[in-house]
Amino acid sequence: MAVSPQRPLVAFLLLLVYCSSCGFSIPDPRQREALMRLEASMQTGGQVVLTDAEQRLDALLFKMKQEEMKGRDFPPAMHFFKARHLINKSPIFSLLQRMPKGGALHVHDLAMVSVEWLVKNVTYRPNCYMCFTDNRSLRFLFSSSWPKDLPHCSAWNLLENLRAKEVNTTDLDDSIMGNLTLFTHQDPESMYPTQDVVWDRFEQAFLAVMGLVRYAPVFRDYYYEGLTQFYMDNVMYLELRALLPEIYELDGSTHDTTWALKTYVEVTRQFKAEHPDFFGTRIIYTVHRGLDLSVMVGVVEEAMKLQRDFPGIMAGFDLVGREDSGRPLWYFREALSLPVEKGVTLPFFFHAGETDLEGTDVDQNLLDALLLNTSRIGHGFALVRHPVAKEMSRKKGVAVEVCPISNQVLKLVKDLRNHPAAALMSENHPMVISSDDPAMFGASGLSHDFYEAFVGFGGTSSHVGSLKQLAMNSIWYSSLNPKQQEDALALWQRRWDKFVSEIVHNGENGGKL
Amino acid sequence: MAVSPQRPLVAFLLLLVYCSSCGFSIPDPRQREALMRLEASMQTGGQVVLTDAEQRLDALLFKMKQEEMKGRDFPPAMHFFKARHLINKSPIFSLLQRMPKGGALHVHDLAMVSVEWLVKNVTYRPNCYMCFTDNRSLRFLFSSSWPKDLPHCSAWNLLENLRAKEVNTTDLDDSIMGNLTLFTHQDPESMYPTQDVVWDRFEQAFLAVMGLVRYAPVFRDYYYEGLTQFYMDNVMYLELRALLPEIYELDGSTHDTTWALKTYVEVTRQFKAEHPDFFGTRIIYTVHRGLDLSVMVGVVEEAMKLQRDFPGIMAGFDLVGREDSGRPLWYFREALSLPVEKGVTLPFFFHAGETDLEGTDVDQNLLDALLLNTSRIGHGFALVRHPVAKEMSRKKGVAVEVCPISNQVLKLVKDLRNHPAAALMSENHPMVISSDDPAMFGASGLSHDFYEAFVGFGGTSSHVGSLKQLAMNSIWYSSLNPKQQEDALALWQRRWDKFVSEIVHNGENGGKL
Repeated sequence: MAVSPQRPLVAFLLLLVYCSSCGFSIPDPRQREALMRLEASMQTGGQVVLTDAEQRLDALLFKMKQEEMKGRDFPPAMHFFKARHLINKSPIFSLLQRMPKGGALHVHDLAMVSVEWLVKNVTYRPNCYMCFTDNRSLRFLFSSSWPKDLPHCSAWNLLENLRAKEVNTTDLDDSIMGNLTLFTHQDPESMYPTQDVVWDRFEQAFLAVMGLVRYAPVFRDYYYEGLTQFYMDNVMYLELRALLPEIYELDGSTHDTTWALKTYVEVTRQFKAEHPDFFGTRIIYTVHRGLDLSVMVGVVEEAMKLQRDFPGIMAGFDLVGREDSGRPLWYFREALSLPVEKGVTLPFFFHAGETDLEGTDVDQNLLDALLLNTSRIGHGFALVRHPVAKEMSRKKGVAVEVCPISNQVLKLVKDLRNHPAAALMSENHPMVISSDDPAMFGASGLSHDFYEAFVGFGGTSSHVGSLKQLAMNSIWYSSLNPKQQEDALALWQRRWDKFVSEIVHNGENGGKL
Repeated sequence: MAVSPQRPLVAFLLLLVYCSSCGFSIPDPRQREALMRLEASMQTGGQVVLTDAEQRLDALLFKMKQEEMKGRDFPPAMHFFKARHLINKSPIFSLLQRMPKGGALHVHDLAMVSVEWLVKNVTYRPNCYMCFTDNRSLRFLFSSSWPKDLPHCSAWNLLENLRAKEVNTTDLDDSIMGNLTLFTHQDPESMYPTQDVVWDRFEQAFLAVMGLVRYAPVFRDYYYEGLTQFYMDNVMYLELRALLPEIYELDGSTHDTTWALKTYVEVTRQFKAEHPDFFGTRIIYTVHRGLDLSVMVGVVEEAMKLQRDFPGIMAGFDLVGREDSGRPLWYFREALSLPVEKGVTLPFFFHAGETDLEGTDVDQNLLDALLLNTSRIGHGFALVRHPVAKEMSRKKGVAVEVCPISNQVLKLVKDLRNHPAAALMSENHPMVISSDDPAMFGASGLSHDFYEAFVGFGGTSSHVGSLKQLAMNSIWYSSLNPKQQEDALALWQRRWDKFVSEIVHNGENGGKL
């Protein structure tokens, strides 16, 4: 039921309300009011009809926003690492945490669980080895015997032994934690002065996490914990971009891609059984865009097979890694055309336009993603500079997955009020809000990103209708089939109504929201 | 001859080249090529037909751009104060300096001349007094007798005496210079941490300059020097936003608004006589938006009178000062409706949307400027977040005066690739490039801002056609009448053709461009 946003009568109204040949006239307050209403109706959620309770919630929210904008330190204008403690104290943020946000459609497998859990739970498990790479990153391995040295890494240390030597293990744990995330209490601008520096640290952190999560028992628990954290953040559905990496056991034996996928199926089933108001997860199989074309052909063939064998959980396929330094989609066109050539279904969910290198080959990814019939666009940061791609995305109802905090931390934009999605939101461009790699950025499931979008993109213009539509968009633009979307929407609606009535009841009675 | 940009056949071509119901198909390279060409044709200058010589210039420029984008430090991504020495070394910048850029349509009277000239020439004139304000700014006055103390300022010092006491006057001169501009060799981010701080320093610098420039002999020379500096930067026409302040003589006697305007007329005439390829100046009379409504009524009446009495030089009227802390246009609607009510012509050139306070009263200035029939929009930074105002500006051919360096220094945007005008330029929205207050930012006439727009907004997408159209836009969207526009365009075209042939000749012969 992916619906493309409506612009009913906009052109007609514009013609009606002003006229370029009318010449000079005194501005009419009613005409002004009509144009302001027209503009308000064009934004995301601008045509959502609010119930009485929702209108009362909106009045509360409007007051909260005005307070928020008064402050000297406006969180969306600041780097998230510096703003987080302010956001965490914001009443709007508390409200967004409680709000049923629908689905998270752009989240990566290895960055869905807070690093506290990885350190405090996973690295305390037995047989956990760690080594220090030449470039100050960490690698991990679980093994029943002392493992062989890795290139460019120190000798392995058994973490149990390392910790036994320390009087106080807090510093060691903090140092490990700092290595698994970009989040820092230091000044992020000096710590990550350029895109190259921040992307290098970002990729190193993934490699560090990988050794922990690829261990079979952890793989299962990590995913379960991820579902828990998103569920606690009131996210009811996930489309997870997953590398489906080779999973290993303590004796060094390994499992193939299918094993990883089956594990996702099983754990999701278990989680849903325990949490009936969680709707589920679907998997977007991802590989790194650094591959050769010939290798990519094999991977796409594997993806088609997985899509055929696991149609329930498989949503489709995508490429990951930094666009600026990776190969453009057009380089892979032969591989990516295979499904169509063979008449096989393999939906695409391409990252595209996560760049500011305008006019380069990489910058064509947006158009190419659309020509390759992508179902959504990951990031689409550059979309506003590509009017043809933008129009295609709008007309075809190909939603942009906007990840504000990720774009800021990876240095595409500093002040989130200048995020191009602010313009997209002002004209109800198909979009969803997601968090990309919340663990890497020290963010929660979706709430921090919703905060940035709601407060930063919209100023006081966006309202409860915007929030409602963003949540509903995450179901409409999901890969779920129409019947599933209907069920998911019904489930979401029940939770939403409950949320609205609780907040309004507490808010109007002067109680804690 | 203000022409609104064309979008010929775009909708039709889009329909022709892709079709949302076609379903899946293998991307066709010809179709892709057609869409890329379509997108390229939609940008500013995308439909300019290049001569053979221009095409050869374009080939040179494209190579230069690719070199520029390879560098580790990409100037448009940096604060202009840190990037200036890099830009000054850039071959693209040298080329833009030599390029006939047409007119500068958004420049303020008190910030058109480099502060070096003010210090080295003006403050060395006899009878120049200076005092130090409580908030570390300076005030100046020329006087034949020792002047009375100002409130919140130290006792007056005769600059001759101050300098006589110094062994080396360089430090004193540097310190004065630093006070008259925002430009600094220190870290601009720490020096100006917030919009409030930078705007306060900005306004103080204007007050300091004011005392020097309001002195009758300096007023005349300052404007002549300003014309010289813009002329040397290959700008052939100016629309100057002028406060027309009370001008004083050495004995304390003063001249009225008319005197200032007449002086502009005379000096312009003299300058044109000496520089026949300079086209002229027109004045946009400006007052501060901090006024009361009743005072504004009087000012608008005065403006109508000036417009009637000096139709040759008077272009129209505008309000200045920080929008965020000033009164919104709607507050002044009674005063600003006077000309229409009385059937008197007074074109408006309103600053609007120089803000990131989305959804506030100030944020309505864009719509109100358009409803008040503004001829152009000063800045329009917030326009992309206002789809109705944006469409009206496009349909009515109301150009946005984009001042990239000003918006960066005044902290609306950090990385100029994210300037909203990049999106506007990708769809050929009516716009011109200007420099606002070049002396305050340490910028040249127009060339530094043209550099930021050409390299920063466009990446490698923009080309010699974009430059050509931006220059021609500055004539099309000027306040000149059709006959004058025709003459100005003919003059510009001669200079442009000469420029192109010289550059191509030198460039292709491996010589210095």
